Amino acid sequence: MIRDLIVRNRSYRRFYQEVDINLEALRELVDLARLSASGGNVQPLKYILSWQPLRNSLIFSHLGWARYLVDWSGPREGERPSAYIIMLGDTEISRSFGCDHGIAAQSILLGATERGLGGCIIASINKEGLRKALEIPLQYEILLVLALGRPKEIAVIETVGPSGDIQYWRDSEGGHHVPKRPLDDIIIG
Amino acid sequence: MIRDLIVRNRSYRRFYQEVDINLEALRELVDLARLSASGGNVQPLKYILSWQPLRNSLIFSHLGWARYLVDWSGPREGERPSAYIIMLGDTEISRSFGCDHGIAAQSILLGATERGLGGCIIASINKEGLRKALEIPLQYEILLVLALGRPKEIAVIETVGPSGDIQYWRDSEGGHHVPKRPLDDIIIG
Repeated sequence: MIRDLIVRNRSYRRFYQEVDINLEALRELVDLARLSASGGNVQPLKYILSWQPLRNSLIFSHLGWARYLVDWSGPREGERPSAYIIMLGDTEISRSFGCDHGIAAQSILLGATERGLGGCIIASINKEGLRKALEIPLQYEILLVLALGRPKEIAVIETVGPSGDIQYWRDSEGGHHVPKRPLDDIIIG
Repeated sequence: MIRDLIVRNRSYRRFYQEVDINLEALRELVDLARLSASGGNVQPLKYILSWQPLRNSLIFSHLGWARYLVDWSGPREGERPSAYIIMLGDTEISRSFGCDHGIAAQSILLGATERGLGGCIIASINKEGLRKALEIPLQYEILLVLALGRPKEIAVIETVGPSGDIQYWRDSEGGHHVPKRPLDDIIIG
């Protein structure tokens, strides 16, 4: 059931870093994005893969983590992602990417969830630094980084309360709580 | 398998219009979007649902169909969508929507596919006309319209050839052909 997969597909930020994700697995995940819809079928997205520890740590150093957890600067060594998929927009194909990267990211993460993996869509990126570190040509706009690994935390969906606060929070046992707006608040007609 | 679902989830533009999609089914599909990721968990997306024939035809008249099929102005009466989900961005919550609508659209369409339905993400919208017809307050930015129904056409994925042409096309028997770039063209590192 797709609903179960969507519910299990939470944003995870701590992982069993020792669990490898190999190139073939990453290619199969990108293939799910390849087979997904693209505005006008233009397919302007390109991908850079990383599963090697040194390259992973290079990428890690250019990412921002969990804006609402102000006392937490990101996962410690040992709990970091095992792999990354960097999503790029090829400006030689198109100047605008619509929401193609959202469609593609969701396909990839649902595929990862099915494999017992999980991840996080990261938009808080030091793009200039990442471009330089990986020598990404200017032709490619850096859109998103998907962090992937075997999740080492529990995430729980809750309902946004009367205060309307949508900030996720972490309880004293490390559980991650994600308030979602109720269905009747988001269907307006 | 999520891959099977993603492959079956093609963009369909002709439907068995007589197959009803009821309000409860549409609400369950929007719930899949509700449970999906949102940038910073801000959740700025709102939804308008339509399954009533008169409202459907009002929405239909504000949509553009299949830019590459220049001799085809859209599905004829009897082959039109049975329902629509209009995706809005609530500007009182956020001024930018990132790729949230892509993530949400993919969740909804995968859910529809699982139910034996299918659809199309439509961005070619007469937004001014649709806003007026449905009296959508200015607070909401019209982002996408998802057309939904039981597909009445076959769609086939192919590989982009040496010409690089990505335009979908329809064969003499009405089959819809969608060229996708090969995996090795989209993974660049």
